[in-house]
Amino acid sequence: MGADFYAIIPAGGSGSRLWPLSRASAPKFLHDLTGNGRSLLGNTWDRLSLFAAPENIAVVTGATHEAAVRSELPELFPGRLLIEPSPKDSATAIAFAVATILDINPHAVIGSFAADHVVGNDDLFLEAIFSAREEAENGYVVAIGVRPTEPSTAFGYIRAGVDALSAGPSRSFPVSEFVEKPDYDTAKSYLSMGSFFWNAGMFVCQASVLWELIEQNRPVLAEKILQYVSAQRDGLTEHALEIWDSIPAEAIDYVVAEPAAAQGKMRMVVAEFLWDDVGDFASLSKIHQSAEHGSVAVLGANAKVVSENATGVVVSQSRRVISLIGVKDIVIVDTPDALLVTTKEHAQDVKKMVEHMKLEGLEDVL
Amino acid sequence: MGADFYAIIPAGGSGSRLWPLSRASAPKFLHDLTGNGRSLLGNTWDRLSLFAAPENIAVVTGATHEAAVRSELPELFPGRLLIEPSPKDSATAIAFAVATILDINPHAVIGSFAADHVVGNDDLFLEAIFSAREEAENGYVVAIGVRPTEPSTAFGYIRAGVDALSAGPSRSFPVSEFVEKPDYDTAKSYLSMGSFFWNAGMFVCQASVLWELIEQNRPVLAEKILQYVSAQRDGLTEHALEIWDSIPAEAIDYVVAEPAAAQGKMRMVVAEFLWDDVGDFASLSKIHQSAEHGSVAVLGANAKVVSENATGVVVSQSRRVISLIGVKDIVIVDTPDALLVTTKEHAQDVKKMVEHMKLEGLEDVL
Repeated sequence: MGADFYAIIPAGGSGSRLWPLSRASAPKFLHDLTGNGRSLLGNTWDRLSLFAAPENIAVVTGATHEAAVRSELPELFPGRLLIEPSPKDSATAIAFAVATILDINPHAVIGSFAADHVVGNDDLFLEAIFSAREEAENGYVVAIGVRPTEPSTAFGYIRAGVDALSAGPSRSFPVSEFVEKPDYDTAKSYLSMGSFFWNAGMFVCQASVLWELIEQNRPVLAEKILQYVSAQRDGLTEHALEIWDSIPAEAIDYVVAEPAAAQGKMRMVVAEFLWDDVGDFASLSKIHQSAEHGSVAVLGANAKVVSENATGVVVSQSRRVISLIGVKDIVIVDTPDALLVTTKEHAQDVKKMVEHMKLEGLEDVL
Repeated sequence: MGADFYAIIPAGGSGSRLWPLSRASAPKFLHDLTGNGRSLLGNTWDRLSLFAAPENIAVVTGATHEAAVRSELPELFPGRLLIEPSPKDSATAIAFAVATILDINPHAVIGSFAADHVVGNDDLFLEAIFSAREEAENGYVVAIGVRPTEPSTAFGYIRAGVDALSAGPSRSFPVSEFVEKPDYDTAKSYLSMGSFFWNAGMFVCQASVLWELIEQNRPVLAEKILQYVSAQRDGLTEHALEIWDSIPAEAIDYVVAEPAAAQGKMRMVVAEFLWDDVGDFASLSKIHQSAEHGSVAVLGANAKVVSENATGVVVSQSRRVISLIGVKDIVIVDTPDALLVTTKEHAQDVKKMVEHMKLEGLEDVL
């Protein structure tokens, strides 16, 4: 894809709907949720390595995860692991990476890819990214829209500016709007309309175009990021930390995607690969077909599961024998200090439970 | 109740329907299943201590449980812990105890009480035992029949020889027959007929009467028990072990209760205390009312359970936080090396699962 293409991996978010697997100290991206022996971050790195050399891949993560990320990604290029002193949401993470990349290569084209999503088909993924890059050369910010296969209420949607019902993969469209996670009836209507696509949270654009949009829409953010990068480079660690603390935290959708769409600067490439953000245990179950087809999907290198008349998913981080009898669509997450037992149907309630546990003083397992 | 009354506690049985709580190495009677901080064996001892001094209580258990039983029962009188070199079922255990007690006191009246049952009301229990003892003085073997409160298929039944529908507690009746665990429809008819009572596995009689019945019905068993006791007393340990190995294993119901009933030597005292043999997790759930009434019953000194929209029972032998969301009538048993997740409805299937696990080579957790 050429020396000018840079991939950014914002590796953040604790994923409380995946507790007790995912935690403050062990976020989703550090776990092997596909069962292929590699963390989601590792899978993301491998996928991006198909078109980007290590020196062209930047990872942005929190200080607490630095060691784990380095250990997961031994090929990381020096200077390409960007450490956030504290979490500041996606716009800040991406702005930090873009500012760093522009210093290295003012002509860079960047793609941003979440560290903790699952992509089912590398060829279709590459095809979409190549198409997006072409559009990016024309000055657009190009989102990847995944054609929905069901009326999901777990994802945000991108609305194509024209009827895209019969569009083939990798064709691109203007974006008319971004919409938040819909309710079920709305999601059903989106599915039938054909012009709504899942927002896979990936986008491609020229680094300079993105920076301009940030400067336009959030001048304070842009300025403080430059100050931070400069203070860091000058070894003014204390001062840099002060600057970081004052940076506003915001999501990239609000800072860039929505304003760019409103200005007609946003396009979307249609992708047809399997994609999931593995946001909760229902989603985890969905990506493991055995859990959907009358048996128990088991995740965990040392898992020992025996089941009888049971379906669902078991995540085992212990060496214990786990025995299931007569439980359907069950979700079991077995870790050394915490055990979760719920069902797919209640996957969304895990987050509430985590909040409840905070109030009960159980922070040490959160 | 007088110096001549002796209580026997056969403490055996692994209780595989309560796996992984109950195991070969940690049978049911060693667990605190009522949540009062004491094992079932300890509760049984305390209940019998209401009418028997420590020198009048004999416990029969397997060699592997000797240390645990001594630790549970510090008041055990010297010579009253009878150790079986290997398990030989209830008739052998009771014959062993009766032979030992007859040596001490030929006029003894004995009561036999399982080590791992739950009794809800000590006063009604005492009343029943006193009535049974009176009948025992007349030469009868007296069983305790618990008035059924539901059509249970988990217990054996005793049929009164006369209509006992309106009998008050502690009244006694001739026994017409013992019947095995019935199916549900049969259990329903038993409940409506009023002459069927749960066989609580407790009986009272003169030691000499019981010994005569054993000699009559199983002369080999009686002879070998005497040989074993004598070889042990003479310090012939090797020889004693050989004798023990040749003793037939049989249940007391076949050896004594059914033949005695056929000979008109069996009576039953009606009891109305809450009673349960805690044979499976449905039963465990039943004795914990909270599990039956819209919440989660929690057993385990260090249990930390948080639940949301869940009912059932959790047995925790770990210090892990256990979080339940949206699971109904759930049964969770959390031990250091094994976890069971099932439902009350499938309580009877646990035994099958244990057999299945044996075949899978998982004996180390059984």
